[in-house]
Amino acid sequence: MNELVERRARALGPNVPTFYRDPVEIVRGEGCWLWDASGNRYLDCYNNVPHVGHCHPYVVEAIANQAATLNTHTRYLHRGIVDYVDRLTATFDGPHQAIMVCSGSEANDIALRMAQAVTGKRGFIATDATYHGNTTAVSQLSRRRPPIGGYPDHVRLVPAPTTLTPLGGSMAAQGEAFAEGVRQAIQELEENESGFAGIMLCPIFANEGLPDLPDDFLMPMARVVTEAGGLLIADEVQPGFGRTGRGMWSHSWLGITPDVITLGKPMGNGHPVAACVARPGVMTAFREAFGYFNTFGGNPVSMAAASAVMDVIEDEDLINHASRMSAKVLDMLGGLDFRAEAHIRGRGQFYAVELTRDGLPAPELGAWLIEGLKDRGVLMGVIGPHRNILKFRPPMPFCEDHLDHLATILEQALKTCPT
Amino acid sequence: MNELVERRARALGPNVPTFYRDPVEIVRGEGCWLWDASGNRYLDCYNNVPHVGHCHPYVVEAIANQAATLNTHTRYLHRGIVDYVDRLTATFDGPHQAIMVCSGSEANDIALRMAQAVTGKRGFIATDATYHGNTTAVSQLSRRRPPIGGYPDHVRLVPAPTTLTPLGGSMAAQGEAFAEGVRQAIQELEENESGFAGIMLCPIFANEGLPDLPDDFLMPMARVVTEAGGLLIADEVQPGFGRTGRGMWSHSWLGITPDVITLGKPMGNGHPVAACVARPGVMTAFREAFGYFNTFGGNPVSMAAASAVMDVIEDEDLINHASRMSAKVLDMLGGLDFRAEAHIRGRGQFYAVELTRDGLPAPELGAWLIEGLKDRGVLMGVIGPHRNILKFRPPMPFCEDHLDHLATILEQALKTCPT
Repeated sequence: MNELVERRARALGPNVPTFYRDPVEIVRGEGCWLWDASGNRYLDCYNNVPHVGHCHPYVVEAIANQAATLNTHTRYLHRGIVDYVDRLTATFDGPHQAIMVCSGSEANDIALRMAQAVTGKRGFIATDATYHGNTTAVSQLSRRRPPIGGYPDHVRLVPAPTTLTPLGGSMAAQGEAFAEGVRQAIQELEENESGFAGIMLCPIFANEGLPDLPDDFLMPMARVVTEAGGLLIADEVQPGFGRTGRGMWSHSWLGITPDVITLGKPMGNGHPVAACVARPGVMTAFREAFGYFNTFGGNPVSMAAASAVMDVIEDEDLINHASRMSAKVLDMLGGLDFRAEAHIRGRGQFYAVELTRDGLPAPELGAWLIEGLKDRGVLMGVIGPHRNILKFRPPMPFCEDHLDHLATILEQALKTCPT
Repeated sequence: MNELVERRARALGPNVPTFYRDPVEIVRGEGCWLWDASGNRYLDCYNNVPHVGHCHPYVVEAIANQAATLNTHTRYLHRGIVDYVDRLTATFDGPHQAIMVCSGSEANDIALRMAQAVTGKRGFIATDATYHGNTTAVSQLSRRRPPIGGYPDHVRLVPAPTTLTPLGGSMAAQGEAFAEGVRQAIQELEENESGFAGIMLCPIFANEGLPDLPDDFLMPMARVVTEAGGLLIADEVQPGFGRTGRGMWSHSWLGITPDVITLGKPMGNGHPVAACVARPGVMTAFREAFGYFNTFGGNPVSMAAASAVMDVIEDEDLINHASRMSAKVLDMLGGLDFRAEAHIRGRGQFYAVELTRDGLPAPELGAWLIEGLKDRGVLMGVIGPHRNILKFRPPMPFCEDHLDHLATILEQALKTCPT
């Protein structure tokens, strides 16, 4: 293992992120299970990219068959991209169009330019605890590292909503307080030379820690954005494709109508495919302003993979399954002694356990648990600005058997927890 | 066909590029051949993405096997990415490291930030007839469409070299004249607040029209860039992986030593995979300045595809094959009557025929030929600022049989040319 870690550092350079103090070398996957090089089995409670399960045979076959038939760019006609985009956009309210790309970062990079093309302005708003991707333009919406030359004047990061210390002092006031933060940011952008082009948000604030928010939370913000003439961009890269157990897209049940929706990670079950979806007026404004072409975007193999994922979501009724499992998982989590205050919440098959002691974040417990669970064969993560929120977001077929196994392991781990 | 064109426009929006007045619907590929939905066969003289041939069975099998075994991100250890990057970087002079991504655009977007991280400056130089990709940051290096808010102050586009109207008035003077353009641009960037971070160039100026340049052409430019402390970024997305028939990378035989090299299109034979390669010092500066992670980048399936492409390049001796074919193709082209002045040039399996009449660009002939060849079962393209340069860049296994077929068709087409 050390040999591989050293070779990797020589090949890839410093600061290339891995999970775990002693990173695991994963060699095989199937459904909700992964195996390491020593043959140890892990229950995957972290990965949403293998959305319909690792190496789902139906998706693998679709990729293999199309790769053996044709894989080329979209400057020739091909039914694959048209059939898929028709199917995809039919899941949104009203007419939509799509640009197919390779990554959520590419999709978000386009979404920003769509807002600029529509408004003729440059300024953007995001939350102060988010991450939307890795391109130059998109990474400016994140505070993880300061950009060369300092934080750009055309970006404003507003306070993210939380469960434990709500903006405005109470859960009831948080929606208006969040909107007020956005209103102030818009004013600042309009007062400098940027102007307000749009706001980019994950509708369920996944990176911010999946706060427990009422379904109408986003509505005051949406009104402020619409009144100011900016675009509302919903980053559905994490919550999309039925993850939250209520329809395909989280924004639809949150009562907002985004101008642009970006999709990624789970779309091809691991195949690099993503999309930027927009209303026709927005798409036209972008397509007239930018001569956008993506060599690999929407190629026949990517479309076969993405289409196969849609088939499996329907055939295995995975959205309703997510809804049914959610209640059971939350029930199990609620019955555990986390040896700390555990604030448990979930949206379909996306769960969070915020750990505090005396009301203060307990990141040391989060860190210990992640390692302890890994050592016992369960993969999970932590999120949130304080790294004290367990992130539990398994492949969608995660079911009762997996839950029983997880409950046993979690209980064992928590019993031996030294902190 | 019309039905598909209309459905496509409804699904994807306006201004989505296609090739040809009546676009072809391609349904199958094998080697250097493509088939349309009516069963017509086309000799592919355009596509460099299917580098080792459309649907090469060895690459398809590698993708299928790995997709059935494991496909996950690089926060777990996996030998696939380490083995591939070791193999890839061994093809460069001296130690190099790599970041694996999904597209050439993502790679170039990183390359720009590497230069900013190393120099602490923001300004970039490219040529005035180039294209390096589609992200917000990278698309600012292209003049194809004016960016929202005008051309950015941190970018300077210098006159591109040409064959017919060389900078400085003669072929012999062009290298120094190009370097002088770069020197002036550096001065402008240093005088405004940007400063000079780096220059991004395709070493063979593929999008500029593959001008016929002496092998030492880039050296004066490289000296100017090094003296000014900026980074030299070689975009090998088009010429890389042996396309030019002299080793793996075009920069190596052009006598320059880039600080950063970006790779893309041919890397996975159509699978979305690309890379940004840099010397360790440059990589460290970037990795310390940016917390870069790419969900799909370097995943096991992408690495299996890319590794299989390297195997085929070696097993089928495709670089030497490109060199051998080059002379034969240029010979055939030289024997044709193009009914215009035809300035023929080539670099391995990358050919260009610049068409002029009375010394002036003849784009109407280029446009007619592309359509006429398509109607006769040959796919080719045009490039250059005047769209008068035939771009002939087939899959690497393009051989004598293909060449005979092409010669016959080209001759037939040229005989009936009405313009």
